[in-house]
Formats: sequence, C-alpha cells, structure tokens
Amino acid sequence: MKVRVLVSFKDSILDPQGKTVEHSLHTLGYDFVDEVRQGKVFELELKGISREKAEKIIPEIADKVLANPIIEKFSFEIMD
Amino acid sequence: MKVRVLVSFKDSILDPQGKTVEHSLHTLGYDFVDEVRQGKVFELELKGISREKAEKIIPEIADKVLANPIIEKFSFEIMD
Repeated sequence: MKVRVLVSFKDSILDPQGKTVEHSLHTLGYDFVDEVRQGKVFELELKGISREKAEKIIPEIADKVLANPIIEKFSFEIMD
Repeated sequence: MKVRVLVSFKDSILDPQGKTVEHSLHTLGYDFVDEVRQGKVFELELKGISREKAEKIIPEIADKVLANPIIEKFSFEIMD
C-alpha cells in the first residue's frame, strides 16, 4: 500500500524557503505567482497492514517522526 | 488558482533522507514500513491566469526553478 504524507508549515508560521522561491519566480517574470509555500512530501510503501490500520497509524507516525506538530501540519492520502 | 507541485528524486537516485526516516520508523517498531522516499512539495497560488496557460507554464517553472531535472522528477495538480 502506498501512502503519501504532505507536511508543511502551519499557515501562521513564516516560510522563508517558499518566499525565496516566490521572489525568484517574480525575478524571472512569473508575475502571476501570488504566493508560494514549500513543504515536504513522504511516500511510504507499507506491507502487510490493512487500510483501516494504516488510517489509524499514519497520523501517529506523522506526529512522531515526519512532522513537528508545534509548527507543522500534515495531511495524507492512501494511493492504492 | 492553487497548484501543488511534487518534486522527488528519480527512482534511480539514492534518497538518503528517505532512508534515514525509514530506519527511524523501523527502530520505533513500525516494521510494516517497507520503503520511504522523501521529496518537496510547493503550493503555488496563481492569479489572473487561465487553467490552460497554467498547465503549460507549471512544467516550465518546475524545470527551471522547483526541480533539478537531472536528478529529480515532478508532477503537479491544479487544486481549484
């Protein structure tokens, strides 16, 4: 089973990497880019686990290892 | 218009960050995690541009700025 976990800063947290990309795009003439936020994506391949258990355990893994819950939020989707 | 661009190493490229996360998860007892690959996600807010133009220009932006096409691949989805 393939799971995709997206981790990004909470909306209230400044995102300097995203801002840097935003400025680069403006410098290159891509004026229609209004805002850029950058985050991390994790693609996990899981074996021998039910979809139901995965839905319970992925938030646990995200909170413990993949994201810093104080400043980051996460979402996940089960791909297959 | 909100666009999400996912950038990750090509499958043939070693991903040490992903491997580190994988080992951490195994150490914590999450044995059902078979493989982890880590990448970047960019969420772009675009203004005053048609969906058609966005579909043309996002790959250009990804190739030029967001990804290193020699070692990375990207995919994108238009969210709204």
